[in-house]
Amino acid sequence: MSRIVFVNGAFVPYEEASIPIMDRGFLFGDGIYEVAAVIGGRLVDEAAHLARLDRSLKAIEIANPYSTAQWTELMSELARRNDLDQGLVYVEVTRGVAERDFPFPPAGTPPTVVMFTQAKQIVGAKAAETGVAVITTPDLRWKRRDIKSVALLAQVLAKQEAARAGVAEAWMVEDGYVTEGSSSTAFIITRDDRLVTRPLSNAVLPGITRLAVMKLADEMQLTVEERLFTVEEALAAREAFYASASAIVMPVVAIDGTAIGEGAPGPLTRRLRALYLDLAGDGALASRFA
Amino acid sequence: MSRIVFVNGAFVPYEEASIPIMDRGFLFGDGIYEVAAVIGGRLVDEAAHLARLDRSLKAIEIANPYSTAQWTELMSELARRNDLDQGLVYVEVTRGVAERDFPFPPAGTPPTVVMFTQAKQIVGAKAAETGVAVITTPDLRWKRRDIKSVALLAQVLAKQEAARAGVAEAWMVEDGYVTEGSSSTAFIITRDDRLVTRPLSNAVLPGITRLAVMKLADEMQLTVEERLFTVEEALAAREAFYASASAIVMPVVAIDGTAIGEGAPGPLTRRLRALYLDLAGDGALASRFA
Repeated sequence: MSRIVFVNGAFVPYEEASIPIMDRGFLFGDGIYEVAAVIGGRLVDEAAHLARLDRSLKAIEIANPYSTAQWTELMSELARRNDLDQGLVYVEVTRGVAERDFPFPPAGTPPTVVMFTQAKQIVGAKAAETGVAVITTPDLRWKRRDIKSVALLAQVLAKQEAARAGVAEAWMVEDGYVTEGSSSTAFIITRDDRLVTRPLSNAVLPGITRLAVMKLADEMQLTVEERLFTVEEALAAREAFYASASAIVMPVVAIDGTAIGEGAPGPLTRRLRALYLDLAGDGALASRFA
Repeated sequence: MSRIVFVNGAFVPYEEASIPIMDRGFLFGDGIYEVAAVIGGRLVDEAAHLARLDRSLKAIEIANPYSTAQWTELMSELARRNDLDQGLVYVEVTRGVAERDFPFPPAGTPPTVVMFTQAKQIVGAKAAETGVAVITTPDLRWKRRDIKSVALLAQVLAKQEAARAGVAEAWMVEDGYVTEGSSSTAFIITRDDRLVTRPLSNAVLPGITRLAVMKLADEMQLTVEERLFTVEEALAAREAFYASASAIVMPVVAIDGTAIGEGAPGPLTRRLRALYLDLAGDGALASRFA
């Protein structure tokens, strides 16, 4: 089966999918993206992803080309056309094509819309059974990290540093405090069983999986604390994990070479992951928190 | 005459020029760019621009696909094919095309190279005769502004704010000090005739025109001070201007609505601009400082 992608209103074979060189995504990183998981052929928590897409687009004044219902239909159709059982749907909206000039192009310039899928093992991911290691690295990003823009060079460099170190993720650090992972939210569970993650601000992306995890933790009667935490506190934690649409809840068993807790996925982390996957598999994640 | 652009080794009509949706420039802002002026059909200070391109590429570990001589030949050929008398040559090199994943793609993935020209009045630019106004705005950029990357969303937003205010440029401010313009270097001339601009660091781009201006100022026996300056000091300056490959030396006659000096282009600024253009027009800029 040929891979099908979506470009500006049309479903086309991947080989035919291209954008003009004057696209502002290519010239300026002037665009927004989202990534939603697909499990059992079903989109996971898509309404929340689409709400964040809308919020990011508004923040940089790109008109949202579709309604939530239209996006959902298009994303589902793309997953269906690619026979996607487990994986991701990637969505990118840029400020469109215009002669290169920094200010916004004339009103009415249509945004560019690109979507594609990636098949990926999510439910039975091996890494989640063994846990993964992370490194820490300085957070080099800009000051509006709450906007999910495609200007991702700092994240690319952080993730490459992780890859070079042979680990799965880089936790970014600013003023001694962990901000978040290069493409995920960082969590620790303290020795007195409190789930800690950084509060929302311009310094971090408002994670969709982050929010679901916090709600599940609350249902599990874990105390949830939204506050800053240092690398030292993370190293002394009982458990650690990161959360994202593709990693779901990923146990972290070492940070900068130091084992966390028992050096194996912790019981609370495993319960959070299992609970999330149960709900997502039943398509019940959104309704559970509605 | 059809507009000719350069894409991955070929000169092609603009209408046929496109890149795959999996280009890392489009997905991650994972690329570097340069802009060099053309005056009288001749590239201006291109060796310095190509040295900076090489430096930026090295900083994010993209292999430079061409030698300085090859770049110069390709840029000159593109200007010639577009019959460009005055304007710009834009060069972009991205980390190439690969299935979307944050870390670098496999070694040997060829970088994407795109070049195009833009016709633009440089020598007789009207704005340089009247001078322009600028606003100040918080500097939202990342922490490696010395790398000329295409992840430019913060600069886009700053320039749009300027456009909305009806002015030419936004000077970005951090901790009370001017860093630089959204696409230019900020200069002031104090009441005791010192030329002041911010020293090079990770906080600013090492401007090519900045360097030439400093050397010309030195020849004019102006004292040149590389140091931080505040918005308040800029407002009290005798003259102000910004420098870039396309604006050359652009007199700033108002900042945030406050007139600078006499509210007209200052004599030292005009002399710096004229001197620069004389040398550039003679193709003598590079050899003068060799």
